Amino acid sequence: MTVGMNLFDSVFGCAAMEELFNDAARLQRMLDFEAALATAEARCGIIPAAAAKAIAARCQADLLDLPALAKAAALSLNPAIPLVRQLTDLVIEDDAESARFVHWGATSQDVNDTALVLQMRDAFDLVANDLESLCAGVRTLAEKHRSTPIAGRTMMQHALPTTFGLKAAGWLDALNRHRERLVEVRGRALVLQFGGAVGTLASLHGQGLAVAEALAAELRLKLPVMPWHAHRDRVAEVAAMLGLLTGTLGKIARDLSLHMQTEIAEILEPAAPGRGGSSTMPHKRNPVSAGVVLAAAARVPALVATMLAVMPQEDERGLGNWQAEWETLPQIFRLTGGALHQLAAIVPNLEIDVGRMRRNLDATQGLIFAEAVVFALAERVGKAAAHALVEEASGEARQSGRHLREVLATMKSVAGHLSTAEIDRLFAPEGYLGAAGEFVDRVTVSANRNKQA
Amino acid sequence: MTVGMNLFDSVFGCAAMEELFNDAARLQRMLDFEAALATAEARCGIIPAAAAKAIAARCQADLLDLPALAKAAALSLNPAIPLVRQLTDLVIEDDAESARFVHWGATSQDVNDTALVLQMRDAFDLVANDLESLCAGVRTLAEKHRSTPIAGRTMMQHALPTTFGLKAAGWLDALNRHRERLVEVRGRALVLQFGGAVGTLASLHGQGLAVAEALAAELRLKLPVMPWHAHRDRVAEVAAMLGLLTGTLGKIARDLSLHMQTEIAEILEPAAPGRGGSSTMPHKRNPVSAGVVLAAAARVPALVATMLAVMPQEDERGLGNWQAEWETLPQIFRLTGGALHQLAAIVPNLEIDVGRMRRNLDATQGLIFAEAVVFALAERVGKAAAHALVEEASGEARQSGRHLREVLATMKSVAGHLSTAEIDRLFAPEGYLGAAGEFVDRVTVSANRNKQA
Amino acid sequence: MTVGMNLFDSVFGCAAMEELFNDAARLQRMLDFEAALATAEARCGIIPAAAAKAIAARCQADLLDLPALAKAAALSLNPAIPLVRQLTDLVIEDDAESARFVHWGATSQDVNDTALVLQMRDAFDLVANDLESLCAGVRTLAEKHRSTPIAGRTMMQHALPTTFGLKAAGWLDALNRHRERLVEVRGRALVLQFGGAVGTLASLHGQGLAVAEALAAELRLKLPVMPWHAHRDRVAEVAAMLGLLTGTLGKIARDLSLHMQTEIAEILEPAAPGRGGSSTMPHKRNPVSAGVVLAAAARVPALVATMLAVMPQEDERGLGNWQAEWETLPQIFRLTGGALHQLAAIVPNLEIDVGRMRRNLDATQGLIFAEAVVFALAERVGKAAAHALVEEASGEARQSGRHLREVLATMKSVAGHLSTAEIDRLFAPEGYLGAAGEFVDRVTVSANRNKQA
Amino acid sequence: MTVGMNLFDSVFGCAAMEELFNDAARLQRMLDFEAALATAEARCGIIPAAAAKAIAARCQADLLDLPALAKAAALSLNPAIPLVRQLTDLVIEDDAESARFVHWGATSQDVNDTALVLQMRDAFDLVANDLESLCAGVRTLAEKHRSTPIAGRTMMQHALPTTFGLKAAGWLDALNRHRERLVEVRGRALVLQFGGAVGTLASLHGQGLAVAEALAAELRLKLPVMPWHAHRDRVAEVAAMLGLLTGTLGKIARDLSLHMQTEIAEILEPAAPGRGGSSTMPHKRNPVSAGVVLAAAARVPALVATMLAVMPQEDERGLGNWQAEWETLPQIFRLTGGALHQLAAIVPNLEIDVGRMRRNLDATQGLIFAEAVVFALAERVGKAAAHALVEEASGEARQSGRHLREVLATMKSVAGHLSTAEIDRLFAPEGYLGAAGEFVDRVTVSANRNKQA
Repeated sequence: MTVGMNLFDSVFGCAAMEELFNDAARLQRMLDFEAALATAEARCGIIPAAAAKAIAARCQADLLDLPALAKAAALSLNPAIPLVRQLTDLVIEDDAESARFVHWGATSQDVNDTALVLQMRDAFDLVANDLESLCAGVRTLAEKHRSTPIAGRTMMQHALPTTFGLKAAGWLDALNRHRERLVEVRGRALVLQFGGAVGTLASLHGQGLAVAEALAAELRLKLPVMPWHAHRDRVAEVAAMLGLLTGTLGKIARDLSLHMQTEIAEILEPAAPGRGGSSTMPHKRNPVSAGVVLAAAARVPALVATMLAVMPQEDERGLGNWQAEWETLPQIFRLTGGALHQLAAIVPNLEIDVGRMRRNLDATQGLIFAEAVVFALAERVGKAAAHALVEEASGEARQSGRHLREVLATMKSVAGHLSTAEIDRLFAPEGYLGAAGEFVDRVTVSANRNKQA
Repeated sequence: MTVGMNLFDSVFGCAAMEELFNDAARLQRMLDFEAALATAEARCGIIPAAAAKAIAARCQADLLDLPALAKAAALSLNPAIPLVRQLTDLVIEDDAESARFVHWGATSQDVNDTALVLQMRDAFDLVANDLESLCAGVRTLAEKHRSTPIAGRTMMQHALPTTFGLKAAGWLDALNRHRERLVEVRGRALVLQFGGAVGTLASLHGQGLAVAEALAAELRLKLPVMPWHAHRDRVAEVAAMLGLLTGTLGKIARDLSLHMQTEIAEILEPAAPGRGGSSTMPHKRNPVSAGVVLAAAARVPALVATMLAVMPQEDERGLGNWQAEWETLPQIFRLTGGALHQLAAIVPNLEIDVGRMRRNLDATQGLIFAEAVVFALAERVGKAAAHALVEEASGEARQSGRHLREVLATMKSVAGHLSTAEIDRLFAPEGYLGAAGEFVDRVTVSANRNKQA
Repeated sequence: MTVGMNLFDSVFGCAAMEELFNDAARLQRMLDFEAALATAEARCGIIPAAAAKAIAARCQADLLDLPALAKAAALSLNPAIPLVRQLTDLVIEDDAESARFVHWGATSQDVNDTALVLQMRDAFDLVANDLESLCAGVRTLAEKHRSTPIAGRTMMQHALPTTFGLKAAGWLDALNRHRERLVEVRGRALVLQFGGAVGTLASLHGQGLAVAEALAAELRLKLPVMPWHAHRDRVAEVAAMLGLLTGTLGKIARDLSLHMQTEIAEILEPAAPGRGGSSTMPHKRNPVSAGVVLAAAARVPALVATMLAVMPQEDERGLGNWQAEWETLPQIFRLTGGALHQLAAIVPNLEIDVGRMRRNLDATQGLIFAEAVVFALAERVGKAAAHALVEEASGEARQSGRHLREVLATMKSVAGHLSTAEIDRLFAPEGYLGAAGEFVDRVTVSANRNKQA
Repeated sequence: MTVGMNLFDSVFGCAAMEELFNDAARLQRMLDFEAALATAEARCGIIPAAAAKAIAARCQADLLDLPALAKAAALSLNPAIPLVRQLTDLVIEDDAESARFVHWGATSQDVNDTALVLQMRDAFDLVANDLESLCAGVRTLAEKHRSTPIAGRTMMQHALPTTFGLKAAGWLDALNRHRERLVEVRGRALVLQFGGAVGTLASLHGQGLAVAEALAAELRLKLPVMPWHAHRDRVAEVAAMLGLLTGTLGKIARDLSLHMQTEIAEILEPAAPGRGGSSTMPHKRNPVSAGVVLAAAARVPALVATMLAVMPQEDERGLGNWQAEWETLPQIFRLTGGALHQLAAIVPNLEIDVGRMRRNLDATQGLIFAEAVVFALAERVGKAAAHALVEEASGEARQSGRHLREVLATMKSVAGHLSTAEIDRLFAPEGYLGAAGEFVDRVTVSANRNKQA
């Protein structure tokens, strides 16, 4: 039983998510299932109302003997079996007759899976909240920097100018799709598991479906078309959706880490005492949050692969493959949740150096504007000739160390077609941003629409 | 350039999907993009109508010099760059003036990504068709064997009786969810990619969005909110969805392979000349289709992990990570498509041995009915006493080799509570199938509803 | 800080390995590094002997404030930074002057990595011990069942007879290779990490190498050629080696689970109170240990992929990718160690049903001996004719339900070539085991040789 | 059958490796097995010498009907079965009597696996050669730049000065370990596969082992202790070893790509016509080789996971899992081989900008030398006071934009302890490189030693 968070939980996770997936939380939800089952069965007239009451009264995780439970779980490869046994013993203390009806008609996987679904319901709320916060922070960046020029980089090289707002809009656009996915997946995943040993509910004498309906209502879960013990697409889909979200978080963190490099220095993570410092280098400002997110983005894909790989579970309930999910899915929630929480926290406090962004645009002595010049010249001399002229000028600029603007201004073959003023305008990034602003608007408007919906 | 299918393509793939993802098909779709781009730009008044016509006329993959293209693609790490060059040369042959307007305003990734989207559009059709066939085949099994008793197995051990129809219904229920996912993912994935070098469409002088709209219409694709060069959640989601589907295919194949084991022999794959034979053992009937599907289910999860792992792509367009997708996503389509096609083909022709299913129910001398006896006895003597009695009888049956029915019939402590006729009824699987039939109906009805929708 | 084992630790792990990788054990080894560093530096005359003594005296994990440490570790993305700070404060309590020399010249990664190496040294001992136990158990099976016939199965179908001893020998042969790999990998992995901030040991004024040598000696680790902060092949190789071992454990468990199926029933896991039972089915004997091992075999490959995927770490020390290793490698040790421990424990106590193995050989009415008949007939009538005759007889046996032996005995075309006695001999599995015994001997002898070496 | 290389083969692969793993090469090696088998069996007196000669004469891949073979392979899930059939038909054309002895006593997996081993033998040679070339190129860099200062970067931030030679030495040190691993793995992997249907060689009447020895000698492969059909640790280990190597290649490429960024510009990939260019940006010089290597490093880990995940193969020969290896291992060889080949080709031709490396050291106005100042001051005023002073000075430098050197020179609290000359020396990177040169020497010497061995 974890008391407080472990060392690495505090690094990679977030408190609320850790809380949700620790042993106590899991066992309490298993007991919630047992209490709801008894209540539903009493309502259907399968077990006495008094038994349901006696059982529900004892469904409290702090009454369990956890070390004994852990030990027995290892022998049966199933925490539900010793949990049911301990619960039965607890009820016997009050009322031996009622104890007969503990776990009536259910199988151990019904308990485990439904408890997981209940954990996921709360976990989705945490994810949704942090996702909204992150979207809000990113939208603010997109709107504020709608027209802030920055070097657009492809294959890690300067390409053409763009805006920092468009970069942020790109992040937001992807996050918006994840909000959509979250809604869809939530709808499919939050269903009851209840089938008895082989999914027939045979021991409930023809009232299986009625009990299932009552139980689902009791737990405020949807009733699935049929039990899904060996059909794991629901939980694997949750894993995949979180994997997709983590991929986007990793993309944002990768961008941040690149912009934070010493020679680029366009963005800094927020400063705070003890944050991002080095033990020996007083000048460092490490991108620690980006590091946490990148670590999550490096780990989650393989965990998703595990969830997919164990889907072929044998017959009515699998051997080994189901068990392989037990720690894997919570681990994914923990890493995605931790990364999301951390990113949502820093995005509003990032230090954005607009001046540096503009200065870096000049890192190639104007070559980043070469395409703009080509297109301007092309209208006068044709594309091929324009391309050739600019290529010559670019080579000259590179070799001489002079700015491309100056080289062009002194080339006779150019002077006839472009005035100095025209040339100067070509080297202002504002003049070559295309539809960047329109795209930003499309994204932020769509983000607002999503928010209202 | 592949002429015909490779050795392993014919084993793991299916002809239609291979056709869709080979070099010729890919290059043709890249040319389709170039033709549509020219047409759209002519419509928007950006390039002359004659140029658009001249360009479109040459957009035929069989005019390309493929070896030269492959060689140049390696130097630029991009097949679009030499393709544009070859296309330009082809247009020059007809009309040098028009050749200036080839690929106007687009970047190489616009071509590659949109071509992939066009391939995916056709691939989704193949997947959807085979998925419908498979669902039809499985539904027939579920309906036909709605009441066929079979041993329910958990952890690879007999547990309780169930029906073969419920097993098939479980397969169908999962497949139904995949149909739903396919619709959602298709809607998000089939969008145009068009942004120019850094996603601003800067070289189109403020008409970027208009051209994008015309281009999307030309290709019958949706226009996304903004370009998505470095935001790969759409394609990663396609991979994940196919991974989920493949997991279910693997689950079906795993079940088939288990039922086909020599000692179990409840199902056989269809026989055909040269099919499933062994070079030295004339009696063998190997589950070759199950093998193909299981191989796909073993390979796809890791490929999905790759698609997720490369999502953090740098800045406006990534280095190495985008390229890592190029073969990976087609590979997933190929494996999923091949497995799906093969499973859809054999399911209607499976040999189902209903008699053997029933005989196998007796493999444990009646012990599989122990729970039924416990519940029947529990109504008379209480659950604990019933459990103890049946445990004693089960031990006796196991040790003596006698059938549990006989052991119970001779136990005085039982005789008082259950008549011989009652005991006999407890050992008929039909009497202990619970809601199996209802679940089958719920699934097949819902499958029909899906089909009509 | 974990007090006792968590619920799933007790299911998937083993106590000794959990103990080795919990927070307290990790932090103690970090402190062991700091103590050894001070001692080595005092020996080299870099810091005063008194300081080394004062520092070493405080290097005890139970003096640390763990919640504070965990919190600060999150801010710096590094547990070593707050650990050094707490240690410094502890030393200050005794002797402020000495406290100046805590962690002198080291970087945080030196501490973390060397602590991991020290954990791995102990973990390798655990793995080696359990591997020896498992090998001993498996060798006993191979020797005892050197001549025990069993159906050889390929593609999950009966193929030809083999021996259970040869099956066990196959397991042992693979385990022997893992013993070899363990020795090689251990030799490469157990080295000091010590380089200072960027691997130059610059702050040690030219004595860096001398201190490194003394420190390695102090910790009984090898001195590597140079520091390896961003070169992770050593730890990734450890992960890969454990992944290979786990694959073989999974293969053994898969075999056990197949042999334990109700209809096959050739092997049972050992019985014990509370072990493998079901909450509702008194007759079940679940393969719980096989389940644990299969779960590990399903999870470890993806974790190995993570260790490989994060190898491209940036420059002198990476961002995010190094941190992604922190929980992943211990997780692999835990899963492999748990699976190995569990398998080693049950193998000597497996219940082997030799009679059932023999009876199952007859599951195909003698068809499993068809190849033996073909080869015997081939000597008289040629291979093609023999094949045709046996194919005809096999078809007849299958259709009529008669034993192949009887069918052959009544076929005139066979009678002239094989006597009834000869035919009977062909249906005794002992007569068609080929080199099985020789292979068993080769493996067990080689296993013994390994053991002595 | 591939004629020439496919589009992406030429991007990600290298010609020699593609050649080695294409269909023709695979089938030829399968035929080499059949020829050697017949020869060995003739030598052991099992089949007539004339038959061996007749069979060997027809073992030529170009005699096969590949489309028919591919089609039949799909039906039997095994290319060896139709290959044996076609070979038999070919021999019949010459000599029907000899055709009886084709494939005598072998199983299809014997052919497939041994052919793979023969492919791997050649593939290891290619890997070893390119690895030697790469090591030579990297060693030259390490030696040439033994004293070239460069900013050491941790967490993607400037940390302390180091040398470019030490960076290259780090690459070389890792590559040296891969050379060692390659030798070990080669020794374990290059063994014969020969066991007949279930690994007993039963159809060879007690001469199985003798034939196996002769066959191994014929193919110049080691004879394994026993057949290894369902024990895949050997091939999985090859995959893992290649995965480790690819991880190091990815690390080198990651470093190169970071140094090539526009704002850093310390290294450039070699220029060549058509290499690294952009379709619209004349000034770009894309790191295309780094991109290829990074793509491989992103893809191989998941493929290794697949090889590990399919290790638990059923009984004597698996279903689906063995088949999952067929394309996966060649894919790994292809990606690793392509990346290695490309990196070996560019490393000798990298453009190294030593001047830029030095200029970048000043990107933080001297803050990168802060640690050096702390240690120098600490000798006079104690570490804590020194740290405080330098922290103050660093803050002042950052805010004022002045160089740390100047700030320190004007601080009274420093002036008393360090002269201007001493301060100047502290800001020369050469003075703070610690053991960098010694480490370079240790690595290059050890590399030379390896080379001689």
